[in-house]
Amino acid sequence: MAEQTAVARPAFITPDALLDHWQGHRRLTRRVIEAFPEDQLFTYTIGGMRPFGEMAAELLAMAAPMARGLATGEWETYSPGAIGSRDELLRLWDESAPRIAEFWAKIPPERFGETITSFGQYTGPAHWQVLYVIDNEVHHRAQGYVYLRALGIEPPPFYARD
Amino acid sequence: MAEQTAVARPAFITPDALLDHWQGHRRLTRRVIEAFPEDQLFTYTIGGMRPFGEMAAELLAMAAPMARGLATGEWETYSPGAIGSRDELLRLWDESAPRIAEFWAKIPPERFGETITSFGQYTGPAHWQVLYVIDNEVHHRAQGYVYLRALGIEPPPFYARD
Repeated sequence: MAEQTAVARPAFITPDALLDHWQGHRRLTRRVIEAFPEDQLFTYTIGGMRPFGEMAAELLAMAAPMARGLATGEWETYSPGAIGSRDELLRLWDESAPRIAEFWAKIPPERFGETITSFGQYTGPAHWQVLYVIDNEVHHRAQGYVYLRALGIEPPPFYARD
Repeated sequence: MAEQTAVARPAFITPDALLDHWQGHRRLTRRVIEAFPEDQLFTYTIGGMRPFGEMAAELLAMAAPMARGLATGEWETYSPGAIGSRDELLRLWDESAPRIAEFWAKIPPERFGETITSFGQYTGPAHWQVLYVIDNEVHHRAQGYVYLRALGIEPPPFYARD
C-alpha cells in the first residue's frame, strides 16, 4: 500500500534528476571556491558576515551527512570542521561528491515524501530537508559571488554546472 | 502510454509541494525587498553589481511568465520593467503570487518531465526551467542579504518562509 502510494505520487522531478541538479550546483560552488585567492578565502568579509571558506565548511557539513542520514537513518552531529587551506577544502569537496551519490542511490524513493528529523533537530518532509541543503548552498555561494565582485574578481557564470 | 509513464515516474517532490516551496521563497524575498530602505533599493551596489531593486525586477519578469508558459505554451518576451518605487515593486510582487498559483494548477504533471524551450531560447526539462527560476531568486536574494548587512541592516532569517 505504501509502495503504491509512492508510485502514484505525481513527480515534479525524479530523485535521479534531483541528484544531477544538486551535483551541478556543487560543481558550480567548487568553481567559486577555486576563484577565491587563497589569502582571502578564510579572511575576506563584508558587513560582519563569515568568510566564504567558513560558509563552504558549513555546506560540506550538511551535504553528504544529509544524504547519509536519509539513506541510513544515522545522523552525524552537525560540526563544520576547521579547514586550513583552499586545497584542503577542495579535496574534501571532491570527496563528498561520490559519497552523496552512493548514499543517494540507497534512499528508497518513497522516503522523500516522509517526514523525518535530521541532525536530531530539524523536522519536515525529506524533500524539504534536501532542498534546504541545496538552497542554503545557493544562498551562501551567492554571497561568495558578492565577495568576489568586491575583490574585483569575475565569478563563474551562474549557469555553469558541468 | 504517456500518462502511464508519467504516473510511474518516482517523485522526489510533487508539483503541489514544489509550488509551496517556491511561494515560500517568494515570501522570503518579499521580506528582503521590504527590509531595504527606499533610497537604497534602487541605488546601493557592491562591486559593480546591480542594485537589489533591479535584481527583483528580473525575478518578477521570470516567475509568473514561467508558470504561464508551462501552462499555456505562450511565452512572453523577457523584459523586466522599470520599477520606480519599493511600493510598486511590492504591489507587483503580491500580484504575481496568485498568478503563479493559477497557472501552476493548469500545468499537467507529466509536463515537468518534458523538454521545452522557454522564452524562445532556453531548452531543457520543464523541472529544470522552474528550478532555474527559483535558484536564480535564491541567488540574487542572497546578494541582497549582503547589501543589507553592508548597510548595517539585519536581513530576515533564511528559514522564514511563512
